[in-house]
Amino acid sequence: MTKKFNDAKDDDDASTSTTKTTKEDLGRATWTFLHTFAAQYPDEPTRRQERDARELIMILTRAYPCGECAAHFAEIVRVNPPDCSSGLALQRWMCAVHNEVNASLGKAWFDCAKVDGRWSKLECDESDASPGCSLEGRRRKMMR
Amino acid sequence: MTKKFNDAKDDDDASTSTTKTTKEDLGRATWTFLHTFAAQYPDEPTRRQERDARELIMILTRAYPCGECAAHFAEIVRVNPPDCSSGLALQRWMCAVHNEVNASLGKAWFDCAKVDGRWSKLECDESDASPGCSLEGRRRKMMR
Repeated sequence: MTKKFNDAKDDDDASTSTTKTTKEDLGRATWTFLHTFAAQYPDEPTRRQERDARELIMILTRAYPCGECAAHFAEIVRVNPPDCSSGLALQRWMCAVHNEVNASLGKAWFDCAKVDGRWSKLECDESDASPGCSLEGRRRKMMR
Repeated sequence: MTKKFNDAKDDDDASTSTTKTTKEDLGRATWTFLHTFAAQYPDEPTRRQERDARELIMILTRAYPCGECAAHFAEIVRVNPPDCSSGLALQRWMCAVHNEVNASLGKAWFDCAKVDGRWSKLECDESDASPGCSLEGRRRKMMR
């Protein structure tokens, strides 16, 4: 049970952990993914990108891999429909729903005006030869 | 830039980190989410659950928040179409594609026969009064 994926190479906390994935581990991992998703989301998303972002969130309301958490998230999303119209809008929305989840867990409120300081864009090698980390939106030609 | 979400309450590694989210942080978080998704996936998924699982994976091939990583993942998924027919099938598939990604990063190969030991189901409070963590599949009545 203590055997870890990538144990030979990774030097992060995951490689030294001996416990199972908990609901809290899953929550932290998923928020890291979601806030980074929002931070990387284009200022001017394509229709495809908007549809993908909204669908991703809706899939999590049904299929997030903790049933009671998914039901709770579904209720929050029902009251706060996702705003995927721009990077800033999605970052603010993500922060607001994270605050809603945190409130129910007795955790601290975060000032969403500061969300881009907490969850900023990935740093990428953006040379002409490398597509880098960023996701292109409407202004530039899509790669795919 | 060092202000953390939940800083007042969380005692995990995220609350003491002072660095930005890196591509590696994002990768680890996303694999934690995905392997847990597979571990919690029902043995006999509903059609909705199968569609959601497949669509989630396909959204990641387009919108994973690191462009070059998404393109790489898309190529791996094209060659290895997702098998969302059962929990075991999805766990094995997830392990196989993680190995493909790791191979290209020079990381260790993981024996996928042991995947349920590494990424096992979440432990939940499954009383009659609590829906708990598990996601119900085809055999029992869906909650939603």
